[in-house]
Amino acid sequence: MTLPAEQTGDGATTSAVPPSQGGPPARRRPGGRTSRIRTQVLGAVRAELGERGYDELTLDGVAARAGVHRATVYRRWRNVGGLLADVFEATGDDDWQPQDTGSLRGDLAALNHESQAALTARPSIAAALIAASFRSEEAARGVRRLWEDRYARCEVIVDRAVRRGELPPHTDARRLLVAATAPLYHQLVLLRTPPDPDLPDQTARTAVLAASAGAFVKSPPDGQVV
Amino acid sequence: MTLPAEQTGDGATTSAVPPSQGGPPARRRPGGRTSRIRTQVLGAVRAELGERGYDELTLDGVAARAGVHRATVYRRWRNVGGLLADVFEATGDDDWQPQDTGSLRGDLAALNHESQAALTARPSIAAALIAASFRSEEAARGVRRLWEDRYARCEVIVDRAVRRGELPPHTDARRLLVAATAPLYHQLVLLRTPPDPDLPDQTARTAVLAASAGAFVKSPPDGQVV
Repeated sequence: MTLPAEQTGDGATTSAVPPSQGGPPARRRPGGRTSRIRTQVLGAVRAELGERGYDELTLDGVAARAGVHRATVYRRWRNVGGLLADVFEATGDDDWQPQDTGSLRGDLAALNHESQAALTARPSIAAALIAASFRSEEAARGVRRLWEDRYARCEVIVDRAVRRGELPPHTDARRLLVAATAPLYHQLVLLRTPPDPDLPDQTARTAVLAASAGAFVKSPPDGQVV
Repeated sequence: MTLPAEQTGDGATTSAVPPSQGGPPARRRPGGRTSRIRTQVLGAVRAELGERGYDELTLDGVAARAGVHRATVYRRWRNVGGLLADVFEATGDDDWQPQDTGSLRGDLAALNHESQAALTARPSIAAALIAASFRSEEAARGVRRLWEDRYARCEVIVDRAVRRGELPPHTDARRLLVAATAPLYHQLVLLRTPPDPDLPDQTARTAVLAASAGAFVKSPPDGQVV
């Protein structure tokens, strides 16, 4: 879920979408010129996506914006799918961690504030990457891995709350995290409602109340609906 | 949210996405041949979207599938945007109402089961319409209006629960409904996780627990985060 802010080369805010946890081995990242070109090119991809959208994304446009020779871009990334896959790879390849505010509710609210900021930035790279995931298989795979990684990193929020005695030990961290974050994405991305400044806190509070009432305890004693 | 099942001409399950409540006046719907052609054409649009996706949607393809002369389709719907707008208009123009199971938890679970069925149908017209909303302004407007209408229709679930004494009178119906339904859409549409048969009931149960703990009472006494 959380798509934390990250600066692109153009100063636009983007959202982080990391690679799989425990997935394929990390690529070697040579430093120097190759690394600098990658940074320039991926920054240009994010900026083009955020400002112009997926339909306008071309290797030539990216090369021009990055100030990199187009032959280099074609050789290394081949096509738009290759560029997108590498944007997701790079976005997830960071040291992002959720904030530690000292309480479950504070941690979840901070997470939601971060996501809301990323989704409502103009342009929003986070929103552009999500939109791209409905148009490209590479982007869909990238988004899926990034969400997976981000939720895995956020499980520490639940671990800390269990250690503090705020939550029972057998709390399903993933379900709690999804409940705490889904309404924000639902409103902003699917329902396309204007951002509500109270929503990040409200949603965090709701999840904490549900958790305190035992909503996320594994193997709930009552599986019936009515 | 809820995108209830609807039969297309092809027998595929689709999702309902109704027009605005209190929006523009309803169009006149002539019966007979004109109405029949519209039904055939919109059924073909849904089927094409579900099976082939937005990129493959063409007026010629729709006309051929519907068995309607292409000149008719061009004259009446003009372009793909016109077809999509009318699909949303027609989808929302139904008498769908949420089930009345006798309990808040049962009603919310039924809603989620209906949405999960629509989103996991193969092909899923609901998923195709959501995906189209990231590619077309007409579809984005149509989806927005349809969600709005569906959530408005679902407020009766909360009204009934208040009347039964299951919820306090000043419950924010919309926030409760979003909390009860968002995780399902989040998982299936954004995170693209495989459907979990327990999720519809779990999410309903979580929302009821949060509601019982006062999460959706309007003007909460405590607006602080930590």
